[in-house]
Amino acid sequence: MSHISESTVRRLSHYYRVLEEVAAEGKRMISSRRLAEREGVTSAQVRKDLSYFGSFGRRGLGYSVAHLREEIGAILGLDRRWKVAVVGAGNIGSALLSYGGFALQGFDVVAVFDQDQRRVGQRIGELEVQDIARLGELVKSLGIEVGVIATPARAAQGVADALVTAGVRGILNFAPRKLFVPEDVALRTVDMTMEFESLSYSLTQARAPRKRRTSRDAG
Amino acid sequence: MSHISESTVRRLSHYYRVLEEVAAEGKRMISSRRLAEREGVTSAQVRKDLSYFGSFGRRGLGYSVAHLREEIGAILGLDRRWKVAVVGAGNIGSALLSYGGFALQGFDVVAVFDQDQRRVGQRIGELEVQDIARLGELVKSLGIEVGVIATPARAAQGVADALVTAGVRGILNFAPRKLFVPEDVALRTVDMTMEFESLSYSLTQARAPRKRRTSRDAG
Repeated sequence: MSHISESTVRRLSHYYRVLEEVAAEGKRMISSRRLAEREGVTSAQVRKDLSYFGSFGRRGLGYSVAHLREEIGAILGLDRRWKVAVVGAGNIGSALLSYGGFALQGFDVVAVFDQDQRRVGQRIGELEVQDIARLGELVKSLGIEVGVIATPARAAQGVADALVTAGVRGILNFAPRKLFVPEDVALRTVDMTMEFESLSYSLTQARAPRKRRTSRDAG
Repeated sequence: MSHISESTVRRLSHYYRVLEEVAAEGKRMISSRRLAEREGVTSAQVRKDLSYFGSFGRRGLGYSVAHLREEIGAILGLDRRWKVAVVGAGNIGSALLSYGGFALQGFDVVAVFDQDQRRVGQRIGELEVQDIARLGELVKSLGIEVGVIATPARAAQGVADALVTAGVRGILNFAPRKLFVPEDVALRTVDMTMEFESLSYSLTQARAPRKRRTSRDAG
């Protein structure tokens, strides 16, 4: 399997979710049509995506659910766990820490940092908020590989730089601004503010006197 | 101003954020270069985006911060508020309710629903969890215009259908699956699971023996 595109990765992510559901229902085989229908893609697209990594269904039988799930899981790196630091213990950081999704996805939050001395030492769940000054030291001693940025926009690039210097290999950014990191650091941005503004835009346009079609789903 | 693309809306969102920061610093004028630099776009792109809705900077002076902020705010619909229902009072729903960002973006959560009778009647912040059976009734009586879906994937399409039937005009979906809604309902999806899997994929590939460049920022 050589380089695969971001959009293929996203479809693999969706196939994986369908496979989990189908496995929970006790089914052993799945057709490309069934994998396709939930995503609004064609069966041909599914077969093409899966052929990239050498998985071929059998005509009339489809794909083995267990085998395909294992293969896609390995490609997505879901067969291992990552140690995570959350930087920013405000609203977004606290919401992320109370959200159970991290652990389900193989990301274990082992430290939380803030620069505000009033927050340092407070507990959020099982973690005590650490002073951002200790970031480099703790990233190394705890073996942290991923940083989650949950700071205001203006602080985000500085935090990203500090995380990179400390040696993390991936960053998940929730601050509403574009970040710049070296080539060898993986970066994903979840811009909630932008999703709200984009929804607000669509709602506003739909309400305008001369109704026009708007682009609808950013997903 | 006629139809503008999703990616233009996203850039407007970013320009708006830069304008807020610059306004807070007390600056009255801003150059297209300054608006461009934080987004990694060109000044020419900024000028093109802004010319779509008839805003032109003056050579050597740039754009009026206050005027541009007001114009972009109106296009994005940030000059009004929307009443929101959150459906799903589990981890994601609770995290969203504790996250302060909704109100800042003009979205006021006025109701939260769940189908689990053990959750119905419990309080989350200032709201009491309502039975999903009352969705239609309360959407109408409270004047709810936007539904936020924070349910497991398998329940999401049913909830979307119920929200549409109840009369909402926009849906923000946090469930990890694609949803189908009528043309006149605005839909945005924030797929956290996919962001995690996409990050996990990049980390895994970066660790692989033969290092290869991967697509890095989905933002």
